[in-house]
Amino acid sequence: MNELWSALTNSITPYVPGEQPKNIDNLVKLNTNENPYPPAPAVFDAIKGAVNSSLRLYPDCNATCMIESLVRFYNIKHPNAKLDDSNFFIGNGSDEVLAFALRAFYGQERPLNMNDITYSFYTVYCDLFQIPYVIHPLKEDFTIDVDSFVNAKGGVIVTNPNAPTGIYLDIESIKKILDNHKKDVVIIDEAYIDFGGTSCADLVCEYDNLLIITTLSKSRSLAGLRIGYAYGNKSLIEGLNVIKNSFNSYTMDRIAQAAGAAAIDNWEYYDIITDKIIEDREILCENLAKMGFITLPSSANFIFTTHPDYHAKDIYDALRRQGVIVRYFNKPRISEYLRITIGDKEQNIRIVEALNKEFGL
Amino acid sequence: MNELWSALTNSITPYVPGEQPKNIDNLVKLNTNENPYPPAPAVFDAIKGAVNSSLRLYPDCNATCMIESLVRFYNIKHPNAKLDDSNFFIGNGSDEVLAFALRAFYGQERPLNMNDITYSFYTVYCDLFQIPYVIHPLKEDFTIDVDSFVNAKGGVIVTNPNAPTGIYLDIESIKKILDNHKKDVVIIDEAYIDFGGTSCADLVCEYDNLLIITTLSKSRSLAGLRIGYAYGNKSLIEGLNVIKNSFNSYTMDRIAQAAGAAAIDNWEYYDIITDKIIEDREILCENLAKMGFITLPSSANFIFTTHPDYHAKDIYDALRRQGVIVRYFNKPRISEYLRITIGDKEQNIRIVEALNKEFGL
Repeated sequence: MNELWSALTNSITPYVPGEQPKNIDNLVKLNTNENPYPPAPAVFDAIKGAVNSSLRLYPDCNATCMIESLVRFYNIKHPNAKLDDSNFFIGNGSDEVLAFALRAFYGQERPLNMNDITYSFYTVYCDLFQIPYVIHPLKEDFTIDVDSFVNAKGGVIVTNPNAPTGIYLDIESIKKILDNHKKDVVIIDEAYIDFGGTSCADLVCEYDNLLIITTLSKSRSLAGLRIGYAYGNKSLIEGLNVIKNSFNSYTMDRIAQAAGAAAIDNWEYYDIITDKIIEDREILCENLAKMGFITLPSSANFIFTTHPDYHAKDIYDALRRQGVIVRYFNKPRISEYLRITIGDKEQNIRIVEALNKEFGL
Repeated sequence: MNELWSALTNSITPYVPGEQPKNIDNLVKLNTNENPYPPAPAVFDAIKGAVNSSLRLYPDCNATCMIESLVRFYNIKHPNAKLDDSNFFIGNGSDEVLAFALRAFYGQERPLNMNDITYSFYTVYCDLFQIPYVIHPLKEDFTIDVDSFVNAKGGVIVTNPNAPTGIYLDIESIKKILDNHKKDVVIIDEAYIDFGGTSCADLVCEYDNLLIITTLSKSRSLAGLRIGYAYGNKSLIEGLNVIKNSFNSYTMDRIAQAAGAAAIDNWEYYDIITDKIIEDREILCENLAKMGFITLPSSANFIFTTHPDYHAKDIYDALRRQGVIVRYFNKPRISEYLRITIGDKEQNIRIVEALNKEFGL
């Protein structure tokens, strides 16, 4: 107990992010679901174009240029969603957007429902904001128990595809949850949606209680720039802005805004690298299956895999010895699984070679 | 009352930032205390050097490279402070650092004391975090009533030099407050310290309860990049990290970190432009005095000024007609004052010319 800290600071346990080694030159870094491919060339050009004396001036606190790009993008990719600039909110990474959203929509008066195995930051936010939460165990096969959410009191947050399992939840199930929570915000965290799932974007115009949150860190190769966004009914965006403007009006710097807009505009480049990642995920799964690994069906840029003959922690340590970093969670139900980010072809081969070398698989 | 929002979201009123016009080509923008000079050339180089494929990777969540620059800088400029890397915390603008600090150190159990005329975001944070606060009126001459803070129960936050008055509080007075609040964190917000005040940096090793917060938006010409930092005793930095890592682990992107480090390293460039701004402030004050304006003694990159014959709002509107934007606060005690950012020589002349044209002064 530190007497200079607030009671809250003394009572909470922060999130622990995945390791970010300083020097990755000799490492195959597959532990934090980064994209193996660089951002689109147009993103580099956009950043260079923003490097001028206007950096002395505050940025646009609404990130209008990025919102304009998003409106164009969704009108092409999800025309039925009928989204306009009042439907979007930009933040300093989807973690910040999630934090604002939890503070904006839940509280002592409305608890939050979430899965036992999901993004572990959600419970940390709840502790920070003193939001009561209810944990719903995934089924035995790691799929979501939809009925359990349907019958729950309060808000709902679901990662789709789920992390760290990679399993995708179909849109009909999400509609079932939305239909039974008309007075509560339902957040669908679509950080990994581009790698095989179908976004529930089209439901936004149908459900005022749906907020979708996603990130440019994964499919847009921009983890280094911290850009995430939410979209949903205008009144939810207004709620997010009330919280944001009570915390930090200028969350998005000029360069991130320019880069984010260029990344959204250049979706054709990203469609190509996303297809490569999906293809390479399937090849990696096949190779691991030949070695006896059992992998959950993934719609993400990572896989969640286990081996009947070896402890996950031992495999993690062995891969580490071979210069391959993956993610191991020492937690109930998943302590015999490893989460492996899909790298490029060469990196994926390095995993197979490392396993072969260490275990003769 | 929006039924999808939390009770808190329905109850708070967000901060309203100063206007940021989209196109400032024909405007003299002196309303948000930006620096009239561009960032150091080395900052541009540092950004360009960071534009590469590593943007696909998460940044260092501790902004180590920027902290290393700060340690070097303070060892040169404030060697008696004896600061090392455990004394610094970097955030996405000093607004974010302030938000984390208020959440980290105050709460229902410890109220926060502040001036009636000061940075208006402080009370917004308090409402967001449900921290009770006590308002201490400035004296008649707009100086701080130090004894009132000395005798107050709870934490203290003081902007020094104060905003929007520009008046500097001496270090002996700050020591008096610190001595009488050994069990509470005292935050000195030194956003404008480089323009004439003396930082209380040297007090950090003497007072475990002192946290200094500052920004690269003003004297470092980087409002567009969102970089602020706090420094103080190691245990206060740990408290800030508990809150930050419960909110958003990766607040500082790769480019902002590189630019921030370069801006700190290149302090010699900034010393030169700061001296120019101070010199031009004195010239502007003299010119305004000749026109009958009464200006508070400023140690900041702005002045707070009033005219006995004209209403501040009328002067504000007249300047606006002439393409000069300054800041007017329609608030008790200060509704007859204007806050004018110090521009470059040409911009400062534009103010004088505009006043002459409109009022024949």
